[in-house]
Amino acid sequence: MGSDSKKCWVGFDLGGTKMMATIFDPSFKILASTRSKTKAQNGSDQVLERMAEAIREALAEAGVKPEQLGGIGVGCPGPLDLDRGVILTAPNLGWKNVAIKDSLEKAFKCSTVIANDVDAGLFGEYRFGAAQKARCALGVFPGTGIGGGCVYEGHLIRGKVSSCMEIGHIIVQPGGRLCGCGQRGCLEAVASRLAIAADAAMAAHRGEAPHLLQEAGTDISAIKSGALARAIKAGDKAVEKIVRSAARALGVAIAGVVNLLAPDVVVLGGGLVEAMPDLYVDEVRNAIDENAMKTFGKGLRVVPAQLGDDATVRGAAALAEEAAASGK
Amino acid sequence: MGSDSKKCWVGFDLGGTKMMATIFDPSFKILASTRSKTKAQNGSDQVLERMAEAIREALAEAGVKPEQLGGIGVGCPGPLDLDRGVILTAPNLGWKNVAIKDSLEKAFKCSTVIANDVDAGLFGEYRFGAAQKARCALGVFPGTGIGGGCVYEGHLIRGKVSSCMEIGHIIVQPGGRLCGCGQRGCLEAVASRLAIAADAAMAAHRGEAPHLLQEAGTDISAIKSGALARAIKAGDKAVEKIVRSAARALGVAIAGVVNLLAPDVVVLGGGLVEAMPDLYVDEVRNAIDENAMKTFGKGLRVVPAQLGDDATVRGAAALAEEAAASGK
Repeated sequence: MGSDSKKCWVGFDLGGTKMMATIFDPSFKILASTRSKTKAQNGSDQVLERMAEAIREALAEAGVKPEQLGGIGVGCPGPLDLDRGVILTAPNLGWKNVAIKDSLEKAFKCSTVIANDVDAGLFGEYRFGAAQKARCALGVFPGTGIGGGCVYEGHLIRGKVSSCMEIGHIIVQPGGRLCGCGQRGCLEAVASRLAIAADAAMAAHRGEAPHLLQEAGTDISAIKSGALARAIKAGDKAVEKIVRSAARALGVAIAGVVNLLAPDVVVLGGGLVEAMPDLYVDEVRNAIDENAMKTFGKGLRVVPAQLGDDATVRGAAALAEEAAASGK
Repeated sequence: MGSDSKKCWVGFDLGGTKMMATIFDPSFKILASTRSKTKAQNGSDQVLERMAEAIREALAEAGVKPEQLGGIGVGCPGPLDLDRGVILTAPNLGWKNVAIKDSLEKAFKCSTVIANDVDAGLFGEYRFGAAQKARCALGVFPGTGIGGGCVYEGHLIRGKVSSCMEIGHIIVQPGGRLCGCGQRGCLEAVASRLAIAADAAMAAHRGEAPHLLQEAGTDISAIKSGALARAIKAGDKAVEKIVRSAARALGVAIAGVVNLLAPDVVVLGGGLVEAMPDLYVDEVRNAIDENAMKTFGKGLRVVPAQLGDDATVRGAAALAEEAAASGK
């Protein structure tokens, strides 16, 4: 199962609603890609079968045989056992102890690694996108939650068992709004898409955001990043103020991490950034400039992610290659 | 200059007022140690000469010849150029561009590395003290300022040129008290010995801390960690409240770093911890327990440093050995 530069690679993105399997040639060009629904509610056993099926389809489309594979990399949600290749829990999906690595190694007779999906996406940006050749790259992905990752001297920083870099649960407003993790004032409770949607829904209800009210109403589930962006474009100043304030809080938190890890690049991704890259990235960059120590802020690049939906499969495949090269 | 397991090592602690040179045998037993005054005001050239003189004295006392040395490690204040071995600036000492590495390599014909003094101290605790065998060790040293460091999988996390892990300049109270770095609400402005002394001086002035007032007055320069500890022991409840509140703020900030780096041990050192280890470590530990994510807080050890004044020389010598082993 060792390293072989002539091998192809599989990158897999296992999401809560969708999954994607992509086949890469030895130089990481995409040969084929299949997308399907996860159907998490059918249970993890069926999902494992559907994952293998998706990979088989993609291999067939690419004209690649399992024997040609150097490895499979899978970006997964939830706390993981990285070494054993197991999803420990994925509360949203109702899964427990899902043995991704064992299942795929059995099915394809090739080594498999798993990674946190945010980590895989950042590693993709590091190898092929916005963070190439960085000595230290910090990735921050504000969406429904706020994910973080760090590639330091070529490797993802990880915890003993699972991933770490949980920037969303740094406390930025002691005693502030309740977070899903049980704490108060976490960055995620203040600056995530969900937190923005809650504030924007209040503004809409008060009549301060007529465009948002018309498009999305006051149901925070309907107030997605695109709706926020369109409301701002249409002139809802209250919505713009809420988004800028959240981006600023994110930037202040990132500045703290910059003081700790001295990255040379901060990559911003996720729905909010994709929907309003200029406004959002500018606001975050200014907050970092104002709040990071000069010695670390100087020369620091703050950039949007480049790979979009492909980041996770690309990064997962690259992690499979890395693991094969290191003989894991 | 390469690695040689039969070599002796020099660890050097270059402080603003004092310096210490210690000679270690190949198994890192202390053979001799000399302490002297830095006399920084005499200029960096004279200090470089005095450093060499201190090492020569210690070598003579240990009966070790320069040819027997595997390397010299120096813990230094100020922003450093780690690769070139230069102190870039040490504002308190009035130094600029002090070429420690070149100077000592010329004097002793043996390879020399420099490190931030906090990093060297933490590396000492990692190799020989409270953080031995840790996969990831976070060190936090509250004193006049608040220093931080992290040993991750055997190596210090560092910036591109100098050290990083500046936990003292994470913003914990947006818009709060002015910090020496120019920001507001940095942890250092809220929880350092200087911040505690300022609050305690106010309490003393208001008559709420009679024992502190009697021993140290209201001059914050005189309100050192020992005076604070004695005032608490004598019954100054206001001082105890101030110290506990600062320790708690430190713990909340550390909890954020725990969520980022998932250390298995947090080592607390410095004057405040040495003066009141039980009160201080307990308060920090409780704040981490309450504010870190359960998955990272579980099993985390929070412990006082073990090596005291020897941590920096031990760590600096161990870093010299590490550099020699890696052929740097």
